[in-house]
Amino acid sequence: MSFTPPVNAIGYLLRHGVDLDAIGQTGSFEDTPPDLLDAILGGAADFARDVFAPINWDGDQNPATLEDGNVTASPGFKSAYKQFVDGAWQTVALPAEIGGMGLPSTVSVATNEMLYAANMALGLCPMLTSSAIKAIDAHASDALKTTYLPKMLAGEWTGAMCLTEPQAGSDLGPVRSKAVDNGDGTYAISGQKIYITWGDHDCADNIIHLVLARLPDSPAGSRGISLFICPKYLVNEDGSLGDRNDFQPIGLEHKLGIHGSPTCTMEFSGATGYLVGEVNRGLASMFIMMNEARLFVGVQGVAIGERAYQAALQYAHDRVQGVPPGQEAGAPIIDHPDVRRMLIDMKAKLMGARSICLATAEAGDLGNHAREGLLTPIAKAYGSDTGVDVSSVAVQIHGGMGFVEETGAAQHYRDSRIAPIYEGTNGIQAMDLIGRKLRRDGGEAMRDLIAELRDGVKTVQGASGQGGVDLSVCAAAMEQGLETLTTATDIILSATDVDALGVATTYLELCAKVISGSLLARTVARGVVAGDEQSAAMASLARYHALRIMPTAGGLLISIRAGADPIYDFPRDQLADL
Amino acid sequence: MSFTPPVNAIGYLLRHGVDLDAIGQTGSFEDTPPDLLDAILGGAADFARDVFAPINWDGDQNPATLEDGNVTASPGFKSAYKQFVDGAWQTVALPAEIGGMGLPSTVSVATNEMLYAANMALGLCPMLTSSAIKAIDAHASDALKTTYLPKMLAGEWTGAMCLTEPQAGSDLGPVRSKAVDNGDGTYAISGQKIYITWGDHDCADNIIHLVLARLPDSPAGSRGISLFICPKYLVNEDGSLGDRNDFQPIGLEHKLGIHGSPTCTMEFSGATGYLVGEVNRGLASMFIMMNEARLFVGVQGVAIGERAYQAALQYAHDRVQGVPPGQEAGAPIIDHPDVRRMLIDMKAKLMGARSICLATAEAGDLGNHAREGLLTPIAKAYGSDTGVDVSSVAVQIHGGMGFVEETGAAQHYRDSRIAPIYEGTNGIQAMDLIGRKLRRDGGEAMRDLIAELRDGVKTVQGASGQGGVDLSVCAAAMEQGLETLTTATDIILSATDVDALGVATTYLELCAKVISGSLLARTVARGVVAGDEQSAAMASLARYHALRIMPTAGGLLISIRAGADPIYDFPRDQLADL
Repeated sequence: MSFTPPVNAIGYLLRHGVDLDAIGQTGSFEDTPPDLLDAILGGAADFARDVFAPINWDGDQNPATLEDGNVTASPGFKSAYKQFVDGAWQTVALPAEIGGMGLPSTVSVATNEMLYAANMALGLCPMLTSSAIKAIDAHASDALKTTYLPKMLAGEWTGAMCLTEPQAGSDLGPVRSKAVDNGDGTYAISGQKIYITWGDHDCADNIIHLVLARLPDSPAGSRGISLFICPKYLVNEDGSLGDRNDFQPIGLEHKLGIHGSPTCTMEFSGATGYLVGEVNRGLASMFIMMNEARLFVGVQGVAIGERAYQAALQYAHDRVQGVPPGQEAGAPIIDHPDVRRMLIDMKAKLMGARSICLATAEAGDLGNHAREGLLTPIAKAYGSDTGVDVSSVAVQIHGGMGFVEETGAAQHYRDSRIAPIYEGTNGIQAMDLIGRKLRRDGGEAMRDLIAELRDGVKTVQGASGQGGVDLSVCAAAMEQGLETLTTATDIILSATDVDALGVATTYLELCAKVISGSLLARTVARGVVAGDEQSAAMASLARYHALRIMPTAGGLLISIRAGADPIYDFPRDQLADL
Repeated sequence: MSFTPPVNAIGYLLRHGVDLDAIGQTGSFEDTPPDLLDAILGGAADFARDVFAPINWDGDQNPATLEDGNVTASPGFKSAYKQFVDGAWQTVALPAEIGGMGLPSTVSVATNEMLYAANMALGLCPMLTSSAIKAIDAHASDALKTTYLPKMLAGEWTGAMCLTEPQAGSDLGPVRSKAVDNGDGTYAISGQKIYITWGDHDCADNIIHLVLARLPDSPAGSRGISLFICPKYLVNEDGSLGDRNDFQPIGLEHKLGIHGSPTCTMEFSGATGYLVGEVNRGLASMFIMMNEARLFVGVQGVAIGERAYQAALQYAHDRVQGVPPGQEAGAPIIDHPDVRRMLIDMKAKLMGARSICLATAEAGDLGNHAREGLLTPIAKAYGSDTGVDVSSVAVQIHGGMGFVEETGAAQHYRDSRIAPIYEGTNGIQAMDLIGRKLRRDGGEAMRDLIAELRDGVKTVQGASGQGGVDLSVCAAAMEQGLETLTTATDIILSATDVDALGVATTYLELCAKVISGSLLARTVARGVVAGDEQSAAMASLARYHALRIMPTAGGLLISIRAGADPIYDFPRDQLADL
């Protein structure tokens, strides 16, 4: 169950898939010259491999426990988290103005992928802290920022997001938790919140909850929800910790996966809360972090997929079984064509999904927020779906050993399954893609991306043949794929709402297949031109993608053409009778 | 977590998808007039719903335990199994000559599906007994038959298959367990067997193990393996039980799913064994049951998928969240187009996979063993893959509730994952399909099936429009799909071994998509002509399949055309470095 951080793969994509020079020239980030970048990646890799990864299985087997209103994290987690704090890893992606390292999001996507792969359950804790920091930084008063941000940036205090209630999940409009003005600048928060990731634990001195609640005179629905800080321990004026606040975990979920991440039901009983931002604008304040959180969930899918792939690859090298074609004796199963196919397929999909995640981060770093918005739901959904897909195939390669928990393959399969669900289900991502991101701007951001990738075809054609690397099938698949994507986009743009929503997931999948393959091919072309030695191997993955993954877009287009008719054709109430 | 056996769906497919009259006319089976068939289906449905289903979750939460060499099954399992014995359910699919009900395999596919859906973990026990009965009946001496078959047919004694060893899984050639001739007509069996499903338990008085082992002078490899009966308790001449035999469970696997099914490591320490069939012909004796066992694993996939679908459908009706397009207020999530799409997609795939399973059984019942052999790997692989696919989407529809174990959705996701692995991994099914089933007979069985389905296009065209049911898109998709399948088949037939094996899984998937959609459309066409009232609703599923599932065959064909090049393109030993 060892984990080798994929620094070669990630490094290659950072060097040739992302324009780090242009990101540097925005002036928004600290300089990251190549040697610093290598040092950061190497440091994150060492930390992920040596500190987070070794306790991943322990966390799965020994979930957090709840006793007397206090959660104790899985064995080893407290110590590992302390090392995370000591290494100042919380600050990587946070702006320099507030004390962060000020690195571009592209770099933090890379470092976080390694952390998630090493230990997704534990990695969620800093992810939530980061989101909470950004919400507080963007919306809270200076006094609140002064009180909370330094400790959170250090990682000494962690963050948690208290959004979901039993009747308010994907749609937060029906949130019922109450906030009553205490008249002293504070509010009394009451209600029950569910599915609170890292809602309580013993790894940090304090836990800063961001809580959505409703004032008594606020309008119903999503425009009547406000955002509050509720610290687990109240903070005295001198910064020391005071009394425990009036809320506590009252239950831990028994989950399919990420057992090491305590998922709490939190009961707020008149807890002291501090308003963040304007009254009734709580949802808007939360949405500001959503792009980043969604991207990171896509990265989690890639991360778990990568770790599952590594385990499967190792097993395929070690396990001798059966005589492959053209051989005389038993051989490692990697020599069986179908096992080989599964491995290449996993790797090509992972590289494609990783390319989309990095392109999303790059767009954000470059201030191209239309593209960032467009790519975010694709990165989230395709990254997370790929994680499930790849970890399922990894179980398959292990055969019976994959179904036995002690191998660890099953853990990845279980852990990965949350990513398509949280931070907006993948169905919601698809709705977001066609609604807010495609149709609202009349397809402009998508056409801009397609145009850039069409230029990329020329890059690929130009590079093909150099250094003996043939990319001609990639250029052909890109052309065909981008044509298909253009046609599908036109159909979605002119479709009725119901038709568009009915095929939204299919459209997202089509986008993912074409864009991931195109990005990967363009990256390899640039790598070839730059004379990067890894390019010959990477070109194999790009060709596999071009020959076996991108072409599936054609079948998806046929489904998209059919619109919602086949979906609404069926009498809804007869479904149960069949 | 209730379960409603899908008697309407299954009944419709039995009435119009399968030629029960022709099966009856073979003379191989007891008569099953429509009212008897209904009674059997209804009885199996009641039993599955009332006896097996209610303890499914208990079995998941409370796996079997091992103490002092004895396994105690999950709570309630012993009592439920006793009711299974009392109802004589073990005998359904067994030939009348040996005391079975003598029903066709098509009918037992239907009844077993309901049992597996109700409780796959427990349903495995009778499945193994059935396989053991058939092996003994086909190969054992009359004396052994007399001793073992009556009790096994009654279900009072269960069966177990001891094949796998640590170094011998997919490839049983390296089996090392030893058999030494005792000189008294018995053998002393020694060795360790792993992954022995229902290898020990307390639900039956005796457990009859079929064990593969090697005589000292036997040749190496698969041609030196013999088959032995090893009863848990030796049987005295008067049929009473004697001493416990010298083997025992020494471990239980901690598995991802089917927790209620005890998976044992068995240690044989000179256990008394009785030779079944000829020395060194043990593997051949086992292979004879393999078609049936593989078909039943495909049925398990459909079964778990069906149960997962039902849970998701119920949740989608109950869960109110968000405002669907064209509506004003919050509505059940089934009114969101993407949720609706997922549900129809699940149901259409299930009906398609179920159609393939029944067609496989029908071919066997009609004595068309070439077709039975051709369809078996497709039924096994597509049925089991569909189970995983559908149960994953069922988790997705449940959102966060799907990731929490108590909902039960996660159990289906975990349980279903074994089916693509056991009884020959799906990769092995794909190799079997192109090797033994397609290329060995020069494609004759496949061409025969394609020709029959091309005739089916005419049936579909002829029925379209009758009773207001439009099947024109089905006919068009069938024509296109069968053309694609023909092309793909020609490619596989003329490909090199490596090219064919490299795309074997893709070819199997293509076969499954086209054949399932074609069978479903033809079934509906026949139902329309027969004036069956269910046909209008079923036609919606066939149209969905035609518009959104069958067309994906085109993309698969592109992959098949590429052959193994994209798979072998990559330097194997560089995979770990990327």
